[in-house]
Amino acid sequence: MQWETSISEVSSDGERIRGYRLDELATNLSFAETIWLILFGEIPTKQKTKLFEAMLITTIDHGIGTPSAMTARIATSGGATLPAAAAAGVLSLGPRHGGAITQAAQMLAVAVTKQESASALVERYKQEAKRLPGYGHKLFTKQDPRTKTLLSLARDLQLSGPHAVLAEEIETMAAKTFSQLLPLNIDGAIAALGLDMELPAESLNGIFLIGRMPGIIAHIIEEQMGTKPMRRLSPDETAYHGAPPRSITHSDNDAF
Amino acid sequence: MQWETSISEVSSDGERIRGYRLDELATNLSFAETIWLILFGEIPTKQKTKLFEAMLITTIDHGIGTPSAMTARIATSGGATLPAAAAAGVLSLGPRHGGAITQAAQMLAVAVTKQESASALVERYKQEAKRLPGYGHKLFTKQDPRTKTLLSLARDLQLSGPHAVLAEEIETMAAKTFSQLLPLNIDGAIAALGLDMELPAESLNGIFLIGRMPGIIAHIIEEQMGTKPMRRLSPDETAYHGAPPRSITHSDNDAF
Amino acid sequence: MQWETSISEVSSDGERIRGYRLDELATNLSFAETIWLILFGEIPTKQKTKLFEAMLITTIDHGIGTPSAMTARIATSGGATLPAAAAAGVLSLGPRHGGAITQAAQMLAVAVTKQESASALVERYKQEAKRLPGYGHKLFTKQDPRTKTLLSLARDLQLSGPHAVLAEEIETMAAKTFSQLLPLNIDGAIAALGLDMELPAESLNGIFLIGRMPGIIAHIIEEQMGTKPMRRLSPDETAYHGAPPRSITHSDNDAF
Amino acid sequence: MQWETSISEVSSDGERIRGYRLDELATNLSFAETIWLILFGEIPTKQKTKLFEAMLITTIDHGIGTPSAMTARIATSGGATLPAAAAAGVLSLGPRHGGAITQAAQMLAVAVTKQESASALVERYKQEAKRLPGYGHKLFTKQDPRTKTLLSLARDLQLSGPHAVLAEEIETMAAKTFSQLLPLNIDGAIAALGLDMELPAESLNGIFLIGRMPGIIAHIIEEQMGTKPMRRLSPDETAYHGAPPRSITHSDNDAF
Repeated sequence: MQWETSISEVSSDGERIRGYRLDELATNLSFAETIWLILFGEIPTKQKTKLFEAMLITTIDHGIGTPSAMTARIATSGGATLPAAAAAGVLSLGPRHGGAITQAAQMLAVAVTKQESASALVERYKQEAKRLPGYGHKLFTKQDPRTKTLLSLARDLQLSGPHAVLAEEIETMAAKTFSQLLPLNIDGAIAALGLDMELPAESLNGIFLIGRMPGIIAHIIEEQMGTKPMRRLSPDETAYHGAPPRSITHSDNDAF
Repeated sequence: MQWETSISEVSSDGERIRGYRLDELATNLSFAETIWLILFGEIPTKQKTKLFEAMLITTIDHGIGTPSAMTARIATSGGATLPAAAAAGVLSLGPRHGGAITQAAQMLAVAVTKQESASALVERYKQEAKRLPGYGHKLFTKQDPRTKTLLSLARDLQLSGPHAVLAEEIETMAAKTFSQLLPLNIDGAIAALGLDMELPAESLNGIFLIGRMPGIIAHIIEEQMGTKPMRRLSPDETAYHGAPPRSITHSDNDAF
Repeated sequence: MQWETSISEVSSDGERIRGYRLDELATNLSFAETIWLILFGEIPTKQKTKLFEAMLITTIDHGIGTPSAMTARIATSGGATLPAAAAAGVLSLGPRHGGAITQAAQMLAVAVTKQESASALVERYKQEAKRLPGYGHKLFTKQDPRTKTLLSLARDLQLSGPHAVLAEEIETMAAKTFSQLLPLNIDGAIAALGLDMELPAESLNGIFLIGRMPGIIAHIIEEQMGTKPMRRLSPDETAYHGAPPRSITHSDNDAF
Repeated sequence: MQWETSISEVSSDGERIRGYRLDELATNLSFAETIWLILFGEIPTKQKTKLFEAMLITTIDHGIGTPSAMTARIATSGGATLPAAAAAGVLSLGPRHGGAITQAAQMLAVAVTKQESASALVERYKQEAKRLPGYGHKLFTKQDPRTKTLLSLARDLQLSGPHAVLAEEIETMAAKTFSQLLPLNIDGAIAALGLDMELPAESLNGIFLIGRMPGIIAHIIEEQMGTKPMRRLSPDETAYHGAPPRSITHSDNDAF
């Protein structure tokens, strides 16, 4: 099996990432610039770097009560090593937790290409009784402050484009159309701004994973340093609603 | 890189596990017998199979409140796929949750080899203020019913040997020596009985992982079928004890 | 947060799985029967148990060259713990490796319900240029011997039903329709026979995960016992096709 | 169960990390500065930020032939989702792959505290036939270029201290003492410089996990975009050395 790559080249002389010597990157670029380079192949402009840093920072942690922090800490409490607990945290980042970015990006990209208006799009989702990916948040029910920061910064940096414009129009139309407010959330904002910076839609979810990793590690280290024993639910936090007490009878498992 | 193995051989004619044709195994053996074969290289006797089945069954699930069930269900609630959620569950099975088997086996194996008595061993652990691996349980504070079932079955099958005898003597001595009861738990029982069946100490923890997998899968399927949204802690379940609200000042991040 | 379950109930008296005392299960049932019970809620008949054991056995391992064995062994070679390496193995079990069961089950269930014939279904997949889930294998290009074993056993046990019949008819029609043979593979056979035993389609992929776990553990233990250092590709096994050697220039990263 | 943390506080008004508003961090700090803040509690100086960025960059990827890249790509080839494949990559980062940082830090911290000389330390390891953690590399057999970059940068920034000095002295002494060169590797350099910046030893391994995540994601995206089918070893890449072909006999599985 031959393994081919365009990412990096390693020899006994050293390593090159996307053609650049690793030591040149380490002494000249920021970590965020190097992340962009390894993911997308080129060094970003200063403006794009600034917005990219902000995107990574806003995903770094959303509190101890989120699935990624909880699974990482519970695994740690069972004695998992640092990589094992970090993996457990990462594994909770599915479509309902950080992973709506991909669907939101697809929705926005198609709508911009087809020049579908925000009102038509929202109406269509309402008719089909589908959830708008990248909208709504359990805690930030009126407005997601992280989103506003990113959109405002993008405008200041002149990086905001048609996807961000559409994303905000959808937020406005959704408020008029649905019975509850559905603010543009962080997943939706990363999708819109990533597309406006011409990043490939399928890679945007990776930004969330990279951005969240330090938060997961911080929760693991805090849990390791604590003195708490294995986390388990107390009996009053659980409820059993299954079959009543019973015994095995002959008829359960009849003759062969 | 050449990959060598003694486990299985696959060709276009079919597969052999430890020398036996897979189809012959599938029509003639039980799953537990085949697990033993793939792990240890030979088909077990009927007596060993019976005890091994019981060991696997007693580890299958220990309630929704354990780390393995919680992490698997939380990951599922975030939208993780079945393998991803199963992996999250497995990752919480560290030294404090199912993983004390290895340490317990080492303690018992060394003590039997050196003919150390239970009283000397317990006294030594007390002097060194070390925890006895394989003893004590948060819920089963007086006696672990799962352990009693396995030890009794092993005696009936004439598979109980010096490690099980020592394990029970340690339980008795610990009750006299420490201020709280430290019943032999399921980790300790699997360690003792695995050694009495002459299984390699380093493989015993694998039995727990295999036995627990169906329970993890059952919790994931139940969570998938439920209608609950993403599981997250409510504000009254969390408490923040960190730095007070503050703003970035010049001195935080001084001149380069 | 209240955690509700119908799977198990744990108290200081002991544990019940689906209503049965764990110790009663451990002394009276096989591991496979208990797996069925915890997944599906009831104790299976002897016939269903026999077929279920065979399904679990045929998935136990498909050689050192499969993704699940390779990832588990490579992670072990990097120093991963047993649970961490097992999780790495499980994570490679995606739609292209053991995970086609779900899609195959959906295809077969819909076709049986709608009484679509094998010829119509195969023609439809050909027209839409879609892959038939549960058919074809890289190594078993003419016939998958594991599948034949399961289907034959199911017939002997009188557990074969309309889904297995359709699955074999599709295999025959596909041979006439496509340019290469597409034998019913193990994923397709588990899907068909699971449906014929009236198991829920969404749980069938779990059978593969449970069945494969012992094989993954066996590979990890063998890797741990070996003396090989960290597995890494040698330079002649890799090829770099990316950007040529270059240096950072001013224009890469222009003025802010 | 009450969940306590000092990392972050989330309310419907927004979020604070270590006391700072997330939007203030996103608009004023770099990603690397925010990583330092969430891990260690305070905003780093410009000098420490510069060295920290370089540490993260030098760990970002070490080629397609490393366990973390291979497991992530193999899992992807089996159909794993982005988080699942990322977790598989992270899980290979054990003590032999990025995880020697912890042991190297412990060795250096104790030696500096006890004022043990490099020659005494190297002699002690030779006597005990133990490996020096943080030294030696399969490819960089004479000198690890990444290490030299970091140590030189640390000196320029006046952040080099007793641990870095000792680390280099050990490299020199090891060259005189052992039969093969054992250059200070990237794990050892991160350990030494982390300690010189007064970071807690137990958190240093987390830097490697955070730094490597973008490289893992880049490999997954490249693998997803490729057209390769499931990666599996060809028959000539594997070798079976186990039991010869055999059949089940009565004596394998004797009477109960």
